[in-house]
Amino acid sequence: MNALPAPGAGSIPIAVSGDAVGDPWGADEFEARLRARESRYHIHHPFNLRLNRGELQPFQVRGWVANRFYYQVCIPIKDAAVMANCPDRAERRRWIERMLDHDGRGDYAGANAGGIEAWCRLGMATGLARADIESLRHVRPGVRFAVDAYVNFARRAPWEEAAISSLTELFAPKIHADRLAGWPSHYPWIAPEGLAYFRSRITLANRDVEHGLEIARRWCVTRERQARALQILDFKLDILWTLLDAIALAYPDDLAPELQP
Amino acid sequence: MNALPAPGAGSIPIAVSGDAVGDPWGADEFEARLRARESRYHIHHPFNLRLNRGELQPFQVRGWVANRFYYQVCIPIKDAAVMANCPDRAERRRWIERMLDHDGRGDYAGANAGGIEAWCRLGMATGLARADIESLRHVRPGVRFAVDAYVNFARRAPWEEAAISSLTELFAPKIHADRLAGWPSHYPWIAPEGLAYFRSRITLANRDVEHGLEIARRWCVTRERQARALQILDFKLDILWTLLDAIALAYPDDLAPELQP
Repeated sequence: MNALPAPGAGSIPIAVSGDAVGDPWGADEFEARLRARESRYHIHHPFNLRLNRGELQPFQVRGWVANRFYYQVCIPIKDAAVMANCPDRAERRRWIERMLDHDGRGDYAGANAGGIEAWCRLGMATGLARADIESLRHVRPGVRFAVDAYVNFARRAPWEEAAISSLTELFAPKIHADRLAGWPSHYPWIAPEGLAYFRSRITLANRDVEHGLEIARRWCVTRERQARALQILDFKLDILWTLLDAIALAYPDDLAPELQP
Repeated sequence: MNALPAPGAGSIPIAVSGDAVGDPWGADEFEARLRARESRYHIHHPFNLRLNRGELQPFQVRGWVANRFYYQVCIPIKDAAVMANCPDRAERRRWIERMLDHDGRGDYAGANAGGIEAWCRLGMATGLARADIESLRHVRPGVRFAVDAYVNFARRAPWEEAAISSLTELFAPKIHADRLAGWPSHYPWIAPEGLAYFRSRITLANRDVEHGLEIARRWCVTRERQARALQILDFKLDILWTLLDAIALAYPDDLAPELQP
């Protein structure tokens, strides 16, 4: 059975499912169960399928990029929240790389400008003005609510649970690779340098996943914690899915031209 | 009149003092008022006076170092909390330097090992074992409560207010310089390389103060906010002072040898 979240409990069920009873799964089985959640990854969302099959009109791609930007700007805030709950210097030393990846580092030029800037460049490559993106004016309420649920979870949960919630990165390399493979022919009007974000994330996601799995294995020493890890991953998968629901609803094929980004 | 904090309000008065009424002070007067709070800095605490006059026995110096270590380990957690509340990437890019200063960066060797490690080396130079320091076993409850109040404030306050609370660094270069000047003759039994932390902080404190004052000037656009900034600074000064109260009480001159660190 799947428990429902308690009201106000940050969308994570506080009762645990039947899975939670018994001996802990072995490390391999636990990881396999985490990886099996791929079936719920937003790569399978109808909007993403259309996006990656090249079926979207430019304004729909722009709407997606402008809304997803809200997720991008919240990521380093989420990562700071993880570190603010983490008393282990060795873990913070690894986790801070995620903040530097997104906010930028060193001279903040080129690839050093970080993931938020790279996403902004993607947006501009799709025809959005920088101000349209950075003002967040296209961001739909449903997108805000979903992303904010993620940040608030990271603020309040043990840092290990917040780390586990980032494990949707398990499935990210494929979604980025799909975009890199398909977009140049599907959307030739997008300047290819706009896709740099996707390229950079493939390596970084693999590094992050390795760290995330390490934390999950160490933290989930009981079956109850393992089952909770799966629920946390489901929660994060719901966030990504709901984000696309809100975007799909906002940008139907026949959207009036004056409402198109 | 000075308002008292509301119960559970994180030790910061929520009612504001008579100072809070009127036109905002000019930037220079506001800064002068912040700087005038130096009179409440723990540099004037009886325990610090004795420490810097060379009047303490080795176990008292060790007790101070071991307890103050708790403050050191909490600093990057506090800084992550500031960033977790800060939506401005440009500000996070500056603030993250503080985390890197304390947790370390790059190869984490030598000076790159960061401020927590530098403090640990200071502790070892005073004769403590690394495990004595890192286990936090000498840390007194009063020290924990005071430092935790600081971290909890940073978690819950607007990030600009948390930044203002760090402005006790205005007064830090002098306290570090005093130690560098006096300790080698007062405490010749402490290996001089143990003092590297104090040396490093003089430059870094000046950089941090510049950033902190910039934030305070920008945030405190009303007299009410300026007065609150002074109260926040007082709160932080109280934390540092209370920390020394707890340490002084724990390590009297005639402490039984078996209780001496």
